[in-house]
Amino acid sequence: MKSISILGSTGSIGTQTLDVIRNNKDKFKVVGLAANNEIEILKQQIKEFNPIKVAVFDEKKAEELRKQIDIEVFSDKEALDKIATLKEADTIVISVVGSIGVVPTLKAIQAKKNIALANKETLVTAGKIIMEEVKKNNVNIMPIDSEHSALFQCLLGGKKENIQRLILTCSGGSFRNKTKDELKEVTIKEALNHPTWEMGEKITIDSATLMNKGFEVIEAHHLYGIPYEKIDVIIHPQSIIHSMVEYIDGSIIAQFAISDMRIPIQYALTYPERLKNKLPKLCFEKYNKLTFDKPNIEKFPCLKYAFDAGKIGGTMPAVLNAANEMAVREFLVGKIKFLQIAETIKKAMENHKIIKNPNINEIIKADEWARKFVEEDLIII
Amino acid sequence: MKSISILGSTGSIGTQTLDVIRNNKDKFKVVGLAANNEIEILKQQIKEFNPIKVAVFDEKKAEELRKQIDIEVFSDKEALDKIATLKEADTIVISVVGSIGVVPTLKAIQAKKNIALANKETLVTAGKIIMEEVKKNNVNIMPIDSEHSALFQCLLGGKKENIQRLILTCSGGSFRNKTKDELKEVTIKEALNHPTWEMGEKITIDSATLMNKGFEVIEAHHLYGIPYEKIDVIIHPQSIIHSMVEYIDGSIIAQFAISDMRIPIQYALTYPERLKNKLPKLCFEKYNKLTFDKPNIEKFPCLKYAFDAGKIGGTMPAVLNAANEMAVREFLVGKIKFLQIAETIKKAMENHKIIKNPNINEIIKADEWARKFVEEDLIII
Repeated sequence: MKSISILGSTGSIGTQTLDVIRNNKDKFKVVGLAANNEIEILKQQIKEFNPIKVAVFDEKKAEELRKQIDIEVFSDKEALDKIATLKEADTIVISVVGSIGVVPTLKAIQAKKNIALANKETLVTAGKIIMEEVKKNNVNIMPIDSEHSALFQCLLGGKKENIQRLILTCSGGSFRNKTKDELKEVTIKEALNHPTWEMGEKITIDSATLMNKGFEVIEAHHLYGIPYEKIDVIIHPQSIIHSMVEYIDGSIIAQFAISDMRIPIQYALTYPERLKNKLPKLCFEKYNKLTFDKPNIEKFPCLKYAFDAGKIGGTMPAVLNAANEMAVREFLVGKIKFLQIAETIKKAMENHKIIKNPNINEIIKADEWARKFVEEDLIII
Repeated sequence: MKSISILGSTGSIGTQTLDVIRNNKDKFKVVGLAANNEIEILKQQIKEFNPIKVAVFDEKKAEELRKQIDIEVFSDKEALDKIATLKEADTIVISVVGSIGVVPTLKAIQAKKNIALANKETLVTAGKIIMEEVKKNNVNIMPIDSEHSALFQCLLGGKKENIQRLILTCSGGSFRNKTKDELKEVTIKEALNHPTWEMGEKITIDSATLMNKGFEVIEAHHLYGIPYEKIDVIIHPQSIIHSMVEYIDGSIIAQFAISDMRIPIQYALTYPERLKNKLPKLCFEKYNKLTFDKPNIEKFPCLKYAFDAGKIGGTMPAVLNAANEMAVREFLVGKIKFLQIAETIKKAMENHKIIKNPNINEIIKADEWARKFVEEDLIII
């Protein structure tokens, strides 16, 4: 029986994680839940899964919830950290969105918890520190992400020293077939229309710019200790191959599955076991045309910026991430155009003074610098 | 340094095995070679690889060779067995074609040699006995075959009890797109025109009838201990996915590679290591359409007969194999038509009296019975 806490239990990954737990109550129990402000959903979850402690980020909502339930509700500054380090938990699912996930993840690792990680920012901005702590504390970090879960499984097919390259597959996003000229005038609505996955707005835009894939490249680098020169991205619009590993002998191991996050979530919680589930199976005969293509860096420079930031290292990936987050926010409210997302990130990266081996505080400061820079810079655009 | 003997060194798999060894002389040395009658090629191989002993099946050719070289040349009835059990060898590559491979493989296993197996008949006709001996003698058996090598690699991605099914891919053979009516009148030349692999005549016809895939199903059953109900075949004409394993959680692990036998040969010799080679790499961007389809059992009943024979077990797979070998031979000399290959096999299977747990001699007798039955039966057709 695994004891699980979920940071971000009311979001997409959080609720799907609870769905996996619901179907395997003999294998998992929930001990802690943390949410931002959706207390109605959280209340239902508390009723169903009976956690020991919960956290609500929004102080008012926390107070509201306290009146309705019997268990302790954290909502101070360290609320997330408390759920992340709850002594009753052995595995922490990190499914909060944004850089708010970084510190609780670090604390959970230092408290010797195994991690199931859905939060992108953690490895993108602080990958080196996180992986050092994972090693030092001898815990497992399992990815909740179809690509990294695929890579994890494909890496079981060989030794690390025999890897030729990791191949991250990519749907290509909403604008795969648009010309650079057409990209100039795309609308928010068009950008939010992802071909294969239904996701939140931020990640859908990141998919359209290929920044999401860029983040995944940086995450894969840290998770599996593979140099950027050995990581490739390939466009595969059908999104049923979730990633691949090429070995030096020419063999390529790939993972296929339907596009359902419950598969990587479940695997992250059950590895090295696998569990049966009621999800539909992939039917190959339905996919009578799988296609592959090179990503177009000229049209989608964000992917290149991510490789650049990763290779430069230090505080640069934090700047990449923060500048992107700000730019996407501005795009979503109509303040900048689609192609200006990449331009904004480029400017931020060009103007950043890198710290080579930053600690967590320096990473947070770089993040803040980038946000401020973009805010001020946007006035000029 | 691995010491290797090759049974069938002058054939397609044999020469490719030597090519792998040639490129890795620091890792492998050749201690024994056995050929049928191609002594000119064998002489070159002896000169280059300097084995300790060789065998030539054809007595006259053996005598000829003895005059030209200094090392011992076996050619008596046990010649193959002697090379298979040479005390200096630790790994035996079984690349002879036909049921002649079965007994030497068994002897090699009993002599505690690791096996790299390319010979189909061994597992098809005597799989149960072979795998029992493999277990008893605690040796490794590695497949030299793109499909089984693929399965082996995909099986590293999970536990046996978590397997949903093995999925053997199949090019579909020369006649994939023909109608049943068109199949009635296909010529030998058409049948020999395989879409993706260049192979010997027998195996090319077996690919056209899908019997080759049927044999692979039986081999996979024995090699990996998976019931027939959990083995599927899928048509994948591009032949770059060499097989897949579906796990109970919905994840499917697949192996891709170019169609070059040196990849599975090398893997069979180096596992758990992989070695770099100079073969071209698979370029996904070249394959802009991967397709999948169900096999048509009505058009290609041999695949069904193989499943049937495998499920029945006992001496039935030996009959399937022998009847097929005879029927293909008769097709290749123009004595029967393409669809009569399957009809012949069906008749032989219907008329065979099964022995449930046969020993090797009973398997050999069933094989002989089937050959004789087909010979006599063909007169009637």
